[in-house]
Amino acid sequence: MLPTITWDNDRVILIDQRLLPAEEVYLECLDHIQVAEAIEQMAIRGAPAIGVAAAYGVALGVQKMEESGDWDGEFDRILTRLENTRPTARNLFWALERMKQTFDNHKHLALLQLKETMIQKAISIDKEDVDTNKKIGYWGRELIQDGQNILTHCNAGALATAGYGTALGVIRAAFEQGKKIRVFADETRPLLQGARLTCWELNKDDVPVVLITDNMAGHLMKKGQISAVITGADRIAQNGDTANKIGTYSVAVLAKEHGLPFYVAAPLNTIDFSLTDGDAIPIEERNQEEVKQLAGQCITVPDIEIHNPAFDVTPAKYITAIITEKGIAKPPFELNLASFKD
Amino acid sequence: MLPTITWDNDRVILIDQRLLPAEEVYLECLDHIQVAEAIEQMAIRGAPAIGVAAAYGVALGVQKMEESGDWDGEFDRILTRLENTRPTARNLFWALERMKQTFDNHKHLALLQLKETMIQKAISIDKEDVDTNKKIGYWGRELIQDGQNILTHCNAGALATAGYGTALGVIRAAFEQGKKIRVFADETRPLLQGARLTCWELNKDDVPVVLITDNMAGHLMKKGQISAVITGADRIAQNGDTANKIGTYSVAVLAKEHGLPFYVAAPLNTIDFSLTDGDAIPIEERNQEEVKQLAGQCITVPDIEIHNPAFDVTPAKYITAIITEKGIAKPPFELNLASFKD
Repeated sequence: MLPTITWDNDRVILIDQRLLPAEEVYLECLDHIQVAEAIEQMAIRGAPAIGVAAAYGVALGVQKMEESGDWDGEFDRILTRLENTRPTARNLFWALERMKQTFDNHKHLALLQLKETMIQKAISIDKEDVDTNKKIGYWGRELIQDGQNILTHCNAGALATAGYGTALGVIRAAFEQGKKIRVFADETRPLLQGARLTCWELNKDDVPVVLITDNMAGHLMKKGQISAVITGADRIAQNGDTANKIGTYSVAVLAKEHGLPFYVAAPLNTIDFSLTDGDAIPIEERNQEEVKQLAGQCITVPDIEIHNPAFDVTPAKYITAIITEKGIAKPPFELNLASFKD
Repeated sequence: MLPTITWDNDRVILIDQRLLPAEEVYLECLDHIQVAEAIEQMAIRGAPAIGVAAAYGVALGVQKMEESGDWDGEFDRILTRLENTRPTARNLFWALERMKQTFDNHKHLALLQLKETMIQKAISIDKEDVDTNKKIGYWGRELIQDGQNILTHCNAGALATAGYGTALGVIRAAFEQGKKIRVFADETRPLLQGARLTCWELNKDDVPVVLITDNMAGHLMKKGQISAVITGADRIAQNGDTANKIGTYSVAVLAKEHGLPFYVAAPLNTIDFSLTDGDAIPIEERNQEEVKQLAGQCITVPDIEIHNPAFDVTPAKYITAIITEKGIAKPPFELNLASFKD
C-alpha cells in the first residue's frame, strides 16, 4: 500500500478515501485543478493531508508555467483555486502561505530552478508532517494509561495526514509502547470516516477497535466504558477553541458531563493565531446529498430539507489538553499555545 | 394509506416500517408467531405500537385454540413467544398482562365467545392508544410556543403507536393549533427511524421538518437553533428515569448543557411502577449487522467488532417534564407520576 499522498515525478498520487475500505484505488493528479477537485470532493480529507496535497498542487501548477508567461498572475490563480476548495482547515492556508513565500523568495531564479524549488518545498512539507505526527504521538502517549478505552471521532489518522496521524498517532504511540488499549470509533455520519477509515487503519495495525454509531458515545460513557476522548482538529483559535468534524462538540460536552478528559491532537500549523476565539472560524456547509444518501441509497423522503454543517467548534473550556509536536498545552491555552509559537 | 396496525377479521395488517419511505408495503400476520417475528425484526416498532401488535398477536393465537385443547398451556405458550420478542418496551408487557387478565376472566366462557372477547379486548387496546395520544397532544401542546424549533430523536409518531403519536402527537397538536413550529429530526442510526419515518410522517402532514445527523444536535443547540427537545419513551421507572432509543441520553445531556427543556411524551402504560429507577431496565443489544450494513452494503471493515445497544437510559434529572394522557408530570417524578396511577 502507498502512503496517503505520494509525489511521483510529475504527478501526485492519492488514495481515494471515498472508496475505502471496500476498494483501494489511487487517483493521479496531473495539475493543480485535479488536486483542488480531489480536496473538494473529499477524495483526500483531513486537515494536515489537505495541507500537504495543496502544497503538491501548487508545485504541480508551477510546473506548467512557461518562460514567457505572467508568473505572478498564474501563481495567484493557482493559489486562489486551491484556497477556494474548503474553508475550515487552517493547514490548507498555512501550506499555501508557505508555498507562496517560497515562490516569492525564488521567483528571481531561472524557471527550471524555481520549479524544482517548489517541488522540494512541497516534499519538505510532506515529510515534516510525518515527523510532526510522530512527535505528537511521543508527547501524547503519556496521557494514555495501560488498559484504557479511548473514544475517537472521525479519522485523524495516517489517512488524514501525510502519515502516522494526529489523534491516531497518539493512539499508535501508546499501543507501540505496549499499552493495552481499546479504541471506540464513532462512525461519524454523514461520510462515515470513523467506520470506513479509522476502523480500517487501526484494524490493519492490529489495534483493537470497536465501532459504534455517533449516538452511542454518551451511553458508553455513562456505563463507565470510556476512559478518555481524543480527536484531531481542523482549526484552533488562540484561546484553544477548536473546529473539528461535526459531532466533536457533542462528544466534548458528554466527556465533560462524565468527568472524562477530552484531548485534541494537532500540529501547530492547525492553530490560527490570528483568531482570538472560535467564533470567527468559517464552518463549511456541504451538499445535502451527503446526509440524504448512505452508501449511494436515499435514506429519507427525497425532497426533505437537510442541514449539513461539516464542522463544529468546541469551546476551549471543554478541552483538557491540546497535544502538539512541541509538547502538551494545558489551559490557559492563550498563554500555553503562544509559548509554542515559532 | 392504512393505519400502522389494522385488525381485519382473522388477520393483523401492519405497514412494514423497514421499507419506508421508499416502499409502502403491508404485512399480513395470520398467527401470533408472525406477529412475534414482525416485532423482533422491527417491521413494527415503537413501544405503544409493539403493545398493540402484541395484543392482536394474542387474539390471533387464541383464534387457533380448539375445544379439546389445553387452553391454559396454549395461552402460556402464546404469551411466552410474544414476551420474548423484545425486552425493553414496557408497553409490550403491559398489553400482554391486559390480554392475560381478559383471558383469565373469560376462559369459563364457550370457546367462540372467548375468542370474540379476546379480539374485542385487543381492538379496545388499539383504540385506547389513539385516544391516549390525542390527550398527550392536548396537554403537551401548551409546552410548545409559536415559532419554536423542536428537536426530536427516533420516531415517536403515528408509526410508533396505533396513531397520532406521542412526541409527534404533541408536535401535531401544537401545529394543529396554528403554532408555527419547525421540527429538527435526528436521523437516528443505526436504523434511521428519524430519517425514514419521522421525516415521512411529518412531511405528509405538512409540518416543516429538517433532517440532521445525530451528531449535529449539539452544534445546532449551541447556535441557538433549537428551542426544546421532545422524545418518546420505551420504559419509564417510578423516579422518571427513561429508557428510549439509543442516543436519547446524549441529546438530554446536550439539552441540559444548553439550558433547553427536555420533554418525554408517553402513555402511562410505558411507566413501570415496579422499578424504583432506570438501572434495572433491560437494554436490548441488537444484531451487529444493523450498524455494519446499509441495504446489504457493508460500510466498514467486514470483521470489525461492533456495539449495538438499542436503547439508553436518561436519568430523571435531565428530564424537564413527562407528558402523559392524564397531564404533565414535573419533578419530583416519584410523587407526580404516582398521582396519575389508576
